[in-house]
Amino acid sequence: MSRPEFKILKKSTKSRARLGVIKTKHGVMKTPALFPVATKAVVKTLDSEDIRKIGFEGVLANTYHLMLQPGSDLIKKQGGLHKFMNFNGVIATDSGGFQVFSLGKGLTQSVGKLGTGRGQGCPCPLPVPSLVKIREEGVWFRSHLDGSEHFLSPEKSMKIQQELGADIIFAFDECSSPLDDKKQTEKAMQRTHNWAERCIKAFKDKTSAVNKQQWLFGIVQGGKYKKFREKSAKFIGELDFDGFGIGGSFGEAYGDLKKNMLKVLDITIPLLPEEKPRHLLGIGYLEDLELTIKKGIDLFDCVHPTRMARHGIAFTSQGKLSISKAIFLKDKDPIDKKCSCPTCQNYSRAYICHLFRAKEITAMRLLTIHNLFFIKNFIENIRERIQQDKI
Amino acid sequence: MSRPEFKILKKSTKSRARLGVIKTKHGVMKTPALFPVATKAVVKTLDSEDIRKIGFEGVLANTYHLMLQPGSDLIKKQGGLHKFMNFNGVIATDSGGFQVFSLGKGLTQSVGKLGTGRGQGCPCPLPVPSLVKIREEGVWFRSHLDGSEHFLSPEKSMKIQQELGADIIFAFDECSSPLDDKKQTEKAMQRTHNWAERCIKAFKDKTSAVNKQQWLFGIVQGGKYKKFREKSAKFIGELDFDGFGIGGSFGEAYGDLKKNMLKVLDITIPLLPEEKPRHLLGIGYLEDLELTIKKGIDLFDCVHPTRMARHGIAFTSQGKLSISKAIFLKDKDPIDKKCSCPTCQNYSRAYICHLFRAKEITAMRLLTIHNLFFIKNFIENIRERIQQDKI
Repeated sequence: MSRPEFKILKKSTKSRARLGVIKTKHGVMKTPALFPVATKAVVKTLDSEDIRKIGFEGVLANTYHLMLQPGSDLIKKQGGLHKFMNFNGVIATDSGGFQVFSLGKGLTQSVGKLGTGRGQGCPCPLPVPSLVKIREEGVWFRSHLDGSEHFLSPEKSMKIQQELGADIIFAFDECSSPLDDKKQTEKAMQRTHNWAERCIKAFKDKTSAVNKQQWLFGIVQGGKYKKFREKSAKFIGELDFDGFGIGGSFGEAYGDLKKNMLKVLDITIPLLPEEKPRHLLGIGYLEDLELTIKKGIDLFDCVHPTRMARHGIAFTSQGKLSISKAIFLKDKDPIDKKCSCPTCQNYSRAYICHLFRAKEITAMRLLTIHNLFFIKNFIENIRERIQQDKI
Repeated sequence: MSRPEFKILKKSTKSRARLGVIKTKHGVMKTPALFPVATKAVVKTLDSEDIRKIGFEGVLANTYHLMLQPGSDLIKKQGGLHKFMNFNGVIATDSGGFQVFSLGKGLTQSVGKLGTGRGQGCPCPLPVPSLVKIREEGVWFRSHLDGSEHFLSPEKSMKIQQELGADIIFAFDECSSPLDDKKQTEKAMQRTHNWAERCIKAFKDKTSAVNKQQWLFGIVQGGKYKKFREKSAKFIGELDFDGFGIGGSFGEAYGDLKKNMLKVLDITIPLLPEEKPRHLLGIGYLEDLELTIKKGIDLFDCVHPTRMARHGIAFTSQGKLSISKAIFLKDKDPIDKKCSCPTCQNYSRAYICHLFRAKEITAMRLLTIHNLFFIKNFIENIRERIQQDKI
């Protein structure tokens, strides 16, 4: 295989939903699919063997976090992410764009908070001046770990992602906020387009590539503005990308933003090449999946199922449960009677509840396994219904 | 089987070391053996399936912690500890004696510390007055969790341990400190003896027993005083116990205390019935195992291998490694080249090091698996050498 492949196996007659398969040299992935998020080269609380056993064919790691710790050069020396994590499946890395903006700004805002409202004598860190400087050349930012200065650009993001060696990598974009005004949104979109062209150019240089069979996905921006989304989908869709991410911060809140997300998909998806995969970036609430798959989405990544698990929220066929509530201490049933995951096969709600209340790490792991198993089955069910042309 | 059984399979001709096997209705356990500690009904970071896979035949849970959270009545309602944890192996519970004294005193001291040396305006908890009242009747103490008042006595400890339903339970004792003077040590020993008789009596009432096939072990006290240790071993050894724990706080420090521990074993073991198992309470440093097995010890429990793992200390055939040191970020080798545990088969030092530095929970789990696997092999090796009469 010279490069990854995407084959569409079936198209719904009722919506834009489709079944497909992605083949990379590290494995095969049926779509629609969700990537569990392995931010720092690990799905929190699990190891790669767990991911395989649960049945996920891919994970998505984070360029921003890995460039800061342990550094992409170190991962390259270990033979790339697949060898480093010992995961022989499909790996994707995002470009770092989203985190630079959200964590970079987050750092300065959060430190600002810490620096006020506390009495003297408390060993608070000193406030750090805001440092997310966005220029046409790239972005200067401070690490959220130690405040050290870093630079990221289209070329640098490509180099880092080539050193990490994922199967699917993303172009470096400027992510706009839903609060940005029209002018700011347009500027960010325009820069995303300029950077997309630079990414494609930089990506052709395989000097740093641990894995020479990578796919590069472009990212469509344009915020909540129909005109910009159309423009961005057309522009990015015509470039030589292997697939596409739909970016932006929609989906974090509900109501208008949710509707907006679906509208954006209605606008952009028809303008993207039919034969290439589409990834809805950072989205993956249970209730979002079918809605967006109907709009033509093939891929998702989301921290929601794993993060919820660490906070004691269990996905079940009856809805969500806050498993650490005292009432469950007496409950002999498994988290979900209909579930065949190792957690539900071996342990009761009472035991998981006790482990959460006792602050035992094992609790987070057992519930992460369950939630991922649940969402895997949830998506498999959607795939089956596409197969039966019911969606 | 009406009760557990202990069979001695082989005795060394060179020392008091012996090979044996414990049979309970929940499983068989080759001795000498170490119980990994499952304080709150879980070996920290692992689940029961992991323990089985690593190859341990038993775990030791903690009466003090479980009586406070979730409560022995709740565990009884779940069918006892074996069902609650889903562990079909040998389970032991200590009596709660040690924790009442160490954590009870610990709480008031620690709260005392918190209550001083901080500036105003900090939301510190209020100091709690010391409350470990030891009387002949029993002990009143405060929970380290919420400061609530509790009472533990020989009768109460038996009832709780019968509700928990472990295969091996311990008599409620007054644990003396190595810093106690002669008079204090004698008084604690005398109370331990009185309580031992009350435990045996209370144990005969099986009303609360989830598992009617339990063993009750007596505990030998007497501190660092030869005369008291002799007296205690004789007294406890003649009571109708199924096995014996050697108690006391030796082994926490080295030098004199270490020598003292071995001397205590030389004094006490010959005075205990040969055909019954002997458990060295709370001890299990690698370097202690062979030394004390030679003195005639059959059973150990120790948090050391798992606690060290959570702090990034790896046991290896070359000695201990502090795996989170930056130097290991470049190390492609497994933690121990000679180890066949899942962690060493799947992951490099570089990856484990990265996970520790990135504060990923998975790191603690992977290293706990390794350390337990290492100590299991370490003890298996000792058993083999007893078999060959080399110890």
